[in-house]
Amino acid sequence: MNSHQTISFLSDESLNSKLKFIQELDKLKHVLRRTVLMDGSRRENSAEHSWEIATMALVLHEYGESGTDLFRVVKMLLIHDLVEIDAGDTYVYNQDAVSNQAERETVAAERIFGLLPEPHRSELHNIWKEFEAGDTVDARFARAVDRLQPLIHNYCTKGWVWQENRISADRVRETMSAISEASDSLGRLSNYLIDDAVAKRFLESD
Amino acid sequence: MNSHQTISFLSDESLNSKLKFIQELDKLKHVLRRTVLMDGSRRENSAEHSWEIATMALVLHEYGESGTDLFRVVKMLLIHDLVEIDAGDTYVYNQDAVSNQAERETVAAERIFGLLPEPHRSELHNIWKEFEAGDTVDARFARAVDRLQPLIHNYCTKGWVWQENRISADRVRETMSAISEASDSLGRLSNYLIDDAVAKRFLESD
Repeated sequence: MNSHQTISFLSDESLNSKLKFIQELDKLKHVLRRTVLMDGSRRENSAEHSWEIATMALVLHEYGESGTDLFRVVKMLLIHDLVEIDAGDTYVYNQDAVSNQAERETVAAERIFGLLPEPHRSELHNIWKEFEAGDTVDARFARAVDRLQPLIHNYCTKGWVWQENRISADRVRETMSAISEASDSLGRLSNYLIDDAVAKRFLESD
Repeated sequence: MNSHQTISFLSDESLNSKLKFIQELDKLKHVLRRTVLMDGSRRENSAEHSWEIATMALVLHEYGESGTDLFRVVKMLLIHDLVEIDAGDTYVYNQDAVSNQAERETVAAERIFGLLPEPHRSELHNIWKEFEAGDTVDARFARAVDRLQPLIHNYCTKGWVWQENRISADRVRETMSAISEASDSLGRLSNYLIDDAVAKRFLESD
């Protein structure tokens, strides 16, 4: 099927705009990440990744800094990857793609959050900008969970994606330092997983 | 790959338990629903469905009853399908499967939420029970969004899954009445989509 039936529900312009946004959400299920599922059967998409990290946050939030607002963290995690509908997934270890990622994602955020009526448009656009900037307690914790999830998948799949992309331990340590900045406990977990992955030869030492 | 590397992070028993729960989450990505993606390319899984409805709730909550607590609704939507890891997805129009669904899901909830330490175990288990009972303002709204999402997918795919399963308009109207009970605005949207689907011959009239 090449085109789907769009909804025209004319009596309520605000709800119409929200329905356009909701129909757009479906496209995130087509954006594939490098991460593979724990049984190695296929790559993960950004919609199911976003679900997993929002749900992880519900049981990990007490490891965040004092004053972490769990609901704001969950909102960030639910919407943080929507820009990938236009900009695609950017692999954190791909330096060429990372170099123009911010520019591509800024344009995508304007379009996608711009589908919504106010106040939702500004609320979700601003919370996305806050996540990207990573300067607040909530954004730091959300970014830590977003980093921790693929680390767990890489560990549990015995380094599958690290080996496929020839990623060494020093690059993983550098990328995962964001976890320690947000949480001592999750930082210790992250360091344990990296050290043990090196010891088990899932990950090349430097 | 048949088995994945499990994490043994021995210094923190509470975090260990949470990691077991987090590794379990990945399995929901393997549970397929009847619903197809809007381009008809494949069936949707319950993890990406849960993400879509939690994100939908962020922009639809003002249509809920007075006193709706959006964060509680989002929590319900994130965890409402976890029982399907053990019990599988039950198609709402499959009467045989629906007849023993509650029993299968009650056992699954005990096991899956039981992986967590307190207070998370009780919190998420209780919020799941509240969603299932559907008696509170928050649960009614969460259930309405959970119903609305496949209705939108069915409409946008020109009745794909309705036709595949020979579902007629009266059964859709009965199932979707939960939407009107939670929200006048979303109830009107639901009725419009059903009526227009009949008019466009996506859905068989009775």
